[in-house]
Amino acid sequence: MDTDPKVFVISGPSGAGKGTLTEILLKRVPSLARSVSATTRKPRPGEVDGVDYYFLTKEEFKKHIEDNDFLEWAVVHDNYYGTLRSMVDKELAVGRDVVMVIDVQGAANVKNKMPDAVTIFVEPPSMEELVKRLKLRNTESEAELARRLKNAEAEMMLAKNYDYVVINDDVDRAAGELVSIVEAEKIKN
Amino acid sequence: MDTDPKVFVISGPSGAGKGTLTEILLKRVPSLARSVSATTRKPRPGEVDGVDYYFLTKEEFKKHIEDNDFLEWAVVHDNYYGTLRSMVDKELAVGRDVVMVIDVQGAANVKNKMPDAVTIFVEPPSMEELVKRLKLRNTESEAELARRLKNAEAEMMLAKNYDYVVINDDVDRAAGELVSIVEAEKIKN
Repeated sequence: MDTDPKVFVISGPSGAGKGTLTEILLKRVPSLARSVSATTRKPRPGEVDGVDYYFLTKEEFKKHIEDNDFLEWAVVHDNYYGTLRSMVDKELAVGRDVVMVIDVQGAANVKNKMPDAVTIFVEPPSMEELVKRLKLRNTESEAELARRLKNAEAEMMLAKNYDYVVINDDVDRAAGELVSIVEAEKIKN
Repeated sequence: MDTDPKVFVISGPSGAGKGTLTEILLKRVPSLARSVSATTRKPRPGEVDGVDYYFLTKEEFKKHIEDNDFLEWAVVHDNYYGTLRSMVDKELAVGRDVVMVIDVQGAANVKNKMPDAVTIFVEPPSMEELVKRLKLRNTESEAELARRLKNAEAEMMLAKNYDYVVINDDVDRAAGELVSIVEAEKIKN
């Protein structure tokens, strides 16, 4: 039986609900470690280094890029964000499974560098529902909303590249499916 | 997403508890169809054709063997037992997932003929526990018990050939793992 710790990559379009589902998954399977991202943006009040993010200077971040220490990274609004392979390896080394929530581009990069990672695509029940959810966030301008929807449409076509697809039409059921995936993968040969 | 119905083969040594676990699985996932075996033995009082077994004559059984209509079959105490592919296909055709409980030789034959079948090995927690369980059955002679234990030891080494391994040290947990496997496989790409 394969008892090696595993990496679970939870991805999907913005607004699909991957963050909420992962919070529930982490509560229901407390043995899972959540991967902490690195960023060059300044900490907001209350944010703790190593808990919310690893806060790095641009120089430090670029050094990690050069050292090929990122499983994935991207620039958003002039700030760098990424997942440090060394931090993931540290959890795996002590036998903990790692969960990361990540956009579809990042997920593809992680799968490339870690082919054994289990990838899960979270799909909104419909584009109509996705619009509703993104509008509810209230943080999006009309232009930003339109951009996210266009992205989501393209991203939905990537679901077939993932190991599993969870349709988030019912949060409880969808979170239960995440738990089942983790549980089944742990006893997979 | 792969929404095709699937075949789940639950196997393992005699006494591992595969029958009990499958009963619980079927109660918790009522959409599953349990595969009904064919046999040439006479029906016992109360047994219903098509529910407990498909009761066939030896001639009918042999005809199905010739027609290559068995996913697996074996002779036990002069009676034939087997799983009819046509009956499994009938359930799959109406969209139902099929579960079969089967010995390790039969399981290997099914996987051979249906490579997409999901195979699950149920392992007793220890050989000591297996002895205890087989003795509790009270139906075994000493010689039969010794034979089953020797078989079990050999069969345990086959676990690595299965898609999943469930260790039956706690019936509730083990049954929960079966449910998780079925649920995860249903949303697998």
